[in-house]
Amino acid sequence: MSATNMRFRLAITCIILEVILIILFGLFVQYNEDTDAKHWHEKINNKTSNAENDFYYRYPSFQDVHVMIFIGFGFLMTFLQRYGFSSVGFNFLIAAFALQWATLMQGFLHGLHHGKIEIGVESMINADFCTGSVLISFGAVLGKTSPVQLLVMALIEVTLFATCDNDAVLLTSKHKNGSVYHSDVFAMIGTIFLWMFWPSFNSAITAHGDDQHRTAMNTYYSLASCTLATFAMSALVNNEGKLDMVHIQNAALAGGVAVGTAGEMMLTPFGSMIVGFLAGVISVLGFKYLTPLLESKLKIQDTCGVHNLHGMPGVLGAIVGAITASFASKQVYGEGLKDVFPDVYDNSLTASDQGLRQAISLAVTLGMALLGGLLTGFLLKIPIYGAPPDTICFEDSIYWEVPGEEGGHEELADVRTEEAEKLNG
Amino acid sequence: MSATNMRFRLAITCIILEVILIILFGLFVQYNEDTDAKHWHEKINNKTSNAENDFYYRYPSFQDVHVMIFIGFGFLMTFLQRYGFSSVGFNFLIAAFALQWATLMQGFLHGLHHGKIEIGVESMINADFCTGSVLISFGAVLGKTSPVQLLVMALIEVTLFATCDNDAVLLTSKHKNGSVYHSDVFAMIGTIFLWMFWPSFNSAITAHGDDQHRTAMNTYYSLASCTLATFAMSALVNNEGKLDMVHIQNAALAGGVAVGTAGEMMLTPFGSMIVGFLAGVISVLGFKYLTPLLESKLKIQDTCGVHNLHGMPGVLGAIVGAITASFASKQVYGEGLKDVFPDVYDNSLTASDQGLRQAISLAVTLGMALLGGLLTGFLLKIPIYGAPPDTICFEDSIYWEVPGEEGGHEELADVRTEEAEKLNG
Amino acid sequence: MSATNMRFRLAITCIILEVILIILFGLFVQYNEDTDAKHWHEKINNKTSNAENDFYYRYPSFQDVHVMIFIGFGFLMTFLQRYGFSSVGFNFLIAAFALQWATLMQGFLHGLHHGKIEIGVESMINADFCTGSVLISFGAVLGKTSPVQLLVMALIEVTLFATCDNDAVLLTSKHKNGSVYHSDVFAMIGTIFLWMFWPSFNSAITAHGDDQHRTAMNTYYSLASCTLATFAMSALVNNEGKLDMVHIQNAALAGGVAVGTAGEMMLTPFGSMIVGFLAGVISVLGFKYLTPLLESKLKIQDTCGVHNLHGMPGVLGAIVGAITASFASKQVYGEGLKDVFPDVYDNSLTASDQGLRQAISLAVTLGMALLGGLLTGFLLKIPIYGAPPDTICFEDSIYWEVPGEEGGHEELADVRTEEAEKLNG
Repeated sequence: MSATNMRFRLAITCIILEVILIILFGLFVQYNEDTDAKHWHEKINNKTSNAENDFYYRYPSFQDVHVMIFIGFGFLMTFLQRYGFSSVGFNFLIAAFALQWATLMQGFLHGLHHGKIEIGVESMINADFCTGSVLISFGAVLGKTSPVQLLVMALIEVTLFATCDNDAVLLTSKHKNGSVYHSDVFAMIGTIFLWMFWPSFNSAITAHGDDQHRTAMNTYYSLASCTLATFAMSALVNNEGKLDMVHIQNAALAGGVAVGTAGEMMLTPFGSMIVGFLAGVISVLGFKYLTPLLESKLKIQDTCGVHNLHGMPGVLGAIVGAITASFASKQVYGEGLKDVFPDVYDNSLTASDQGLRQAISLAVTLGMALLGGLLTGFLLKIPIYGAPPDTICFEDSIYWEVPGEEGGHEELADVRTEEAEKLNG
Repeated sequence: MSATNMRFRLAITCIILEVILIILFGLFVQYNEDTDAKHWHEKINNKTSNAENDFYYRYPSFQDVHVMIFIGFGFLMTFLQRYGFSSVGFNFLIAAFALQWATLMQGFLHGLHHGKIEIGVESMINADFCTGSVLISFGAVLGKTSPVQLLVMALIEVTLFATCDNDAVLLTSKHKNGSVYHSDVFAMIGTIFLWMFWPSFNSAITAHGDDQHRTAMNTYYSLASCTLATFAMSALVNNEGKLDMVHIQNAALAGGVAVGTAGEMMLTPFGSMIVGFLAGVISVLGFKYLTPLLESKLKIQDTCGVHNLHGMPGVLGAIVGAITASFASKQVYGEGLKDVFPDVYDNSLTASDQGLRQAISLAVTLGMALLGGLLTGFLLKIPIYGAPPDTICFEDSIYWEVPGEEGGHEELADVRTEEAEKLNG
Repeated sequence: MSATNMRFRLAITCIILEVILIILFGLFVQYNEDTDAKHWHEKINNKTSNAENDFYYRYPSFQDVHVMIFIGFGFLMTFLQRYGFSSVGFNFLIAAFALQWATLMQGFLHGLHHGKIEIGVESMINADFCTGSVLISFGAVLGKTSPVQLLVMALIEVTLFATCDNDAVLLTSKHKNGSVYHSDVFAMIGTIFLWMFWPSFNSAITAHGDDQHRTAMNTYYSLASCTLATFAMSALVNNEGKLDMVHIQNAALAGGVAVGTAGEMMLTPFGSMIVGFLAGVISVLGFKYLTPLLESKLKIQDTCGVHNLHGMPGVLGAIVGAITASFASKQVYGEGLKDVFPDVYDNSLTASDQGLRQAISLAVTLGMALLGGLLTGFLLKIPIYGAPPDTICFEDSIYWEVPGEEGGHEELADVRTEEAEKLNG
């Protein structure tokens, strides 16, 4: 078992990563205007109310996203009976690292202010978003990777994903769902929290006011419509008309993914429900017919990070976004056009050019996802991470102290059991 | 098993319902002022801050209510070991349908604007409320009904409940709790989330400012007081002084139900605690002595949707509301009287008439609940829904692919188990 | 078993306590300006927006804290297989009592307004905080105490803790974590909710605007850094490099505890990450080496309420707070100094005196915790509470009706099982 002994490898990796993070934060990170005592109070004195602090606009959404990352993703994978510690525990470790690294990468790539990264609740949400995209890959490789390998994966993926925007996260966010069989009610805790808070996810960093409000509402109706489509299709593709829990969980997200781009636009609840319905249909059909084909013919397994099917609702969403964008006009949006399409508002782009740009961005994102996946896969195959051999994967006891193994901890439980036996017997 | 084969029945029902919903949304539904880009920005230009968008007043409460609907109600019923998929899954399907249908029904009945239903976060909360009332009935018939039957039930009940207000939901919301034995910690996840977020439930659509604040606080203290009363009574009615988890879960909601009407009024925490205490006492006593009597003598079982006992805290709440209303005055409420009792404020009603009106509304609500229950029960007995025969109810495998039945999905698990056996053996 | 029969003891204790609470609320408690209809509307008429009602600043944070108290603490202790009802159920009872009693105690001690305690969302958060400190002790004595004993414990501790501020809660809030072996994924629900919402916990009652925003963000980064440190140390202190779930759960809170005092200050994310890292290292080392030593040599067991180790991150936090405070200046904080250090702002204290004061407050808090613990322990040893004998502790069936014991409730389950057997066999 010494090949998987993490004692020094994990300790040193964690310590080095955290020390680097701390040094870089010390050099580059500072409070933004809304979190800095001096600057905020200068603003307050100029007749801004505390209610205008971005904290009150975004913190509830941030905490919803936070629950999606740590409970939603963490518990989705607890269905593996002997791998619950690793599912929740490694999700926890990876996410805690990724959100710090994402703060830096996004700060470097999306603009420094006088050489500094200025942070607040919006950057925290963006860091959580980026973390989410890593956790999707985590789901695909769960059980066959060591925590060190997962940290390296997070390091690479955050660096790559920081260059993409929110769409990129959503594009691939279906990945994990198909990869596992959710045999357990525990996993449903994860699913339902993801489904419920997806409106917060989509609206968390849109513009204040009508944009946040509209995005949350469009997502709400898309998810509802998608859920009915999924139950319909799940029954339809099964000979006995039995529902498949994996399909139901696809529905959970497909409707949210598919309005990830267009949800902020004047898509209307009507449009959102059509998109959600299509997303549900595509997702179930893809799952039933496309996935087995890809796996058997092309040997593309779930361990591969760029599985085409799982991006389908995301691709649908990008197309819907491009079409909806190309119909944007001042007549429909009024002054609100400035928040949603600033370039169309100030006439530096026509609406159809805006739509075209969104379509191109889809192609770029898909290309980057492919390249990034190949690169990550290549780097992770270097045999230095203490990954478990194929014969002993999906087993908590490789990396964790599990009750019953060690003397110290279960004394309490032993006492209880003995006493209970006396009582009952 | 062909009688319960859902393949075409469920698929067609879902598709038809969703297509009807989409068409009606296309014809009748539009963004309200707070979600429409053009209209909101016209308002903003007239010196309104984005912080005044209703999203920021109500979205956190909406998400709390959303958690109550999907986690609270969903997990309350996971105590049935072989029915977890159906409990959470059907709750999910019914709720996703009901919230869309409720948006339409409430829009039609509560006022069109130039022939259109205008929607935003407040209508989303109302749709969730209406969904909650359906899920209560769902709890009573769980295990003996097909998903098609449940969808039809939701269709009828939403149509009926849309005509009632918030109180009606609360009035019967105790129904499900007594109907099941919660043998499982899973069910407690549902209970505790319901209990915690009940202050959000009661305050979600009250007027901005002091009304929301006061309602949440009154509910908080009523629930706390009620919890102590329930533990006291639960110990007292048991010969050995043992607590009954079903009582504890009654307490969870009875205190919230009982201030559902009066919580917005100047009831004071003192008054709320008295009401909560009484609700706890009534609820446990009713559960212990009235329910068995009704079941054995009158053959009124939990499958019946209008079980009298469960409405007791709601009836108490309506009475408390009527009394508290009849003492309302400008002296106590100041200008705030306009928000709570607009008719008393502008002298078109006296306070005692207001109280009388609340009492009459209680009688009307009770009558409608009875009629609605009878109608729903009658329609659901038509044998076209693929309901399970009495001999094979409460079994996930009738409607779901369950692990161990099909070849495809558990391969992963099999591999894991085999490898784990090698490792351990 | 009559010694543990709770029938009259629990009923009478609950009823007397609740009646006293109701009387005291009737005499002393009234709505504050933000919850009183008349007073708030007078304020509104003076050009204050409803958005300025404290409800909108603090209610989302309150609900996060509420989830920590009822789900976080409640589920942390569900790892005991036959003690799940008691863990969640007694947590529920104690918390419901403690939050009411805390409202009174904090009102009496922190200032009456014309002889009245004025309450609103901020006092609700403070009541929940105080409740949290009681639940920590609850964790240490779980399984060996009767519900009456727990209520008396809550009564004493709330009275003592009401005199301390927020720091005191945080100081000892590590207590419970080390006391149990979390063998179960259920317990992780508790842990993860505590970890996620700790930023809300620390920021819930800080000043509006930048203070709340900054505190939440500092806590977020401290927790993330601390998590990496903990995984590193947990692997390092184990011969086989295996992770210990108890350590991971320490990390969950240690980083939040350690910035409990300084999180509101201009500590910077950089400083927060250093503090979080140290907290993680100290916590794991203390757990590995100090706890066994204290238990074996000094016979200080987990049943003792003042276990030194668990306060370590709190002590670290107090020291960091004192140091950070002593560097506070108008240059760094601008006008924001008034919110964080009002005495330094108006020159009635120097920054270093402020730091010294914080250090002294640490010593006072530690002293009170010790005295309070001794007093509580002494009072709880009086043999009148129906505590279980050592031979039958950790058993739900002492205090609860458990499925399988009574005829009435499991009929439904029996039917289901029989029918399922017919179906399957």
